[in-house]
Amino acid sequence: MTSQELYSNIRKKKSFLCVGLDTDFKKIPKSLLEKPYPLFEFNKRIIDATEDMTVAYKPNLAFYESLGAAGWISLEMTVNYIRKTYPDIFLIADAKRGDIGNTSTLYANAFFNNLDFDAVTLSPYMGRDSIMPYLEFKNKWSIVLGLTSNEGSEDFQQLMTQKKSHIFEAVIAKVAEWGNKDNTMFVVGATKADQMKAIRKIIPEHFLLVPGIGAQGGKLEEVFQNGSNKDCGLLVNVSRSIIYADVTNRFEISARQKAIEYRDQMENLLKQAKLI
Amino acid sequence: MTSQELYSNIRKKKSFLCVGLDTDFKKIPKSLLEKPYPLFEFNKRIIDATEDMTVAYKPNLAFYESLGAAGWISLEMTVNYIRKTYPDIFLIADAKRGDIGNTSTLYANAFFNNLDFDAVTLSPYMGRDSIMPYLEFKNKWSIVLGLTSNEGSEDFQQLMTQKKSHIFEAVIAKVAEWGNKDNTMFVVGATKADQMKAIRKIIPEHFLLVPGIGAQGGKLEEVFQNGSNKDCGLLVNVSRSIIYADVTNRFEISARQKAIEYRDQMENLLKQAKLI
Repeated sequence: MTSQELYSNIRKKKSFLCVGLDTDFKKIPKSLLEKPYPLFEFNKRIIDATEDMTVAYKPNLAFYESLGAAGWISLEMTVNYIRKTYPDIFLIADAKRGDIGNTSTLYANAFFNNLDFDAVTLSPYMGRDSIMPYLEFKNKWSIVLGLTSNEGSEDFQQLMTQKKSHIFEAVIAKVAEWGNKDNTMFVVGATKADQMKAIRKIIPEHFLLVPGIGAQGGKLEEVFQNGSNKDCGLLVNVSRSIIYADVTNRFEISARQKAIEYRDQMENLLKQAKLI
Repeated sequence: MTSQELYSNIRKKKSFLCVGLDTDFKKIPKSLLEKPYPLFEFNKRIIDATEDMTVAYKPNLAFYESLGAAGWISLEMTVNYIRKTYPDIFLIADAKRGDIGNTSTLYANAFFNNLDFDAVTLSPYMGRDSIMPYLEFKNKWSIVLGLTSNEGSEDFQQLMTQKKSHIFEAVIAKVAEWGNKDNTMFVVGATKADQMKAIRKIIPEHFLLVPGIGAQGGKLEEVFQNGSNKDCGLLVNVSRSIIYADVTNRFEISARQKAIEYRDQMENLLKQAKLI
């Protein structure tokens, strides 16, 4: 998907919501566990209930891999279902991969070709040869960890370099040289809204993928004020507070209600900024 | 596996060789592709031919995941075969994962419990909550990326902090505080033998997992001189120059020959250092 198509979907749906499919077999209704691919059954109902408020879905691969081959099949079924049923959805593999050269190309092929994801999340620690192989795939996206929402982001991302910038700033500036605003995004946690303005000075035009809203305590309005750009430039991810809004067998009704609340807030923000 | 058991295997086998199972379906003999799980068939023959010279095997997960569910099954079969047939082998999942909290625990469970790996490779970028969940598993190991062997290691790992240390040194020092020499190792590339002495000053007692020998140009003797400690403290990984020593259907004979050459060099180094 191109950035123009993604922006067009944001305006059409009046939403920049990404729903995180962190589908945990321990948290989904017991009745689903009788089906052969319970994670897929759960995802399908969440997707059908939230798709009209949502521009992107982001399965976190840990939840699927932890179930072995059966988990992979659930992931494949989820991707295929979205592709067939809702072709304008932006699909992110939250894999946080970081390996080099040929190995990166293998992962890129797995996510972009075999599974037809639009984007994959990447860890930058290994440098250029862990990112560049992904950038060679046309109309596919690398979403590189910049400043994450967890406590441990202080340990290394917030270290100061000799040149008086934080490591996360050095990472974002360097990675932005390898790719461009049409094939690279950055993960910036909603809990770091105060540092988003500094990040926007480095990359005024790139998309930010922002986790940490909802269960982790980040505030949507603050994120929009500090992180949006002239086109919007945000995909805000919500996982648990949508998909586990209700843990009974009527879970999709509450998930839809929560997604509507987020979409309404986003619509307001987009209108205030005259983006729709 | 405990560090004592691992050292005992090193002395018994006169080897600190780790064989990387970077098993690429495009590089294995065509005849194997007729079998239902070709990666496993290849691995089984490599393992049977090299096991008596080898203390560790390290499948790189990209090669298995890129084949979807069938690849995962090949990986599970490889792990189960090693566990059943050669119980003293140290088994490393080369996954380079880095995610947080619950998600790390899911991955840890997948690798340590479902698949019974001894160790998993981890990327440190996200900090403490991406590493600590793995350290809670008894007799299991986290192998954290320190200074990698690829070109891109210059981009961020070699940046200088305000405190005048390289990022990789700050990472190694901090991660060593979270774990200890009996549950934490570090990846240090063989192509960086000149910086290994500085690393040994920070962590004199930890194991280093050293890739980059063979195809990537690192030299075993140099690695041993700069990176070994009083107990040995090294696992040296060789992948391509063993497993693809010969691409015909007699590949395991050449793989065995190559493994013998590495073991002989290692035996000499261990004898010179009076470790055996």
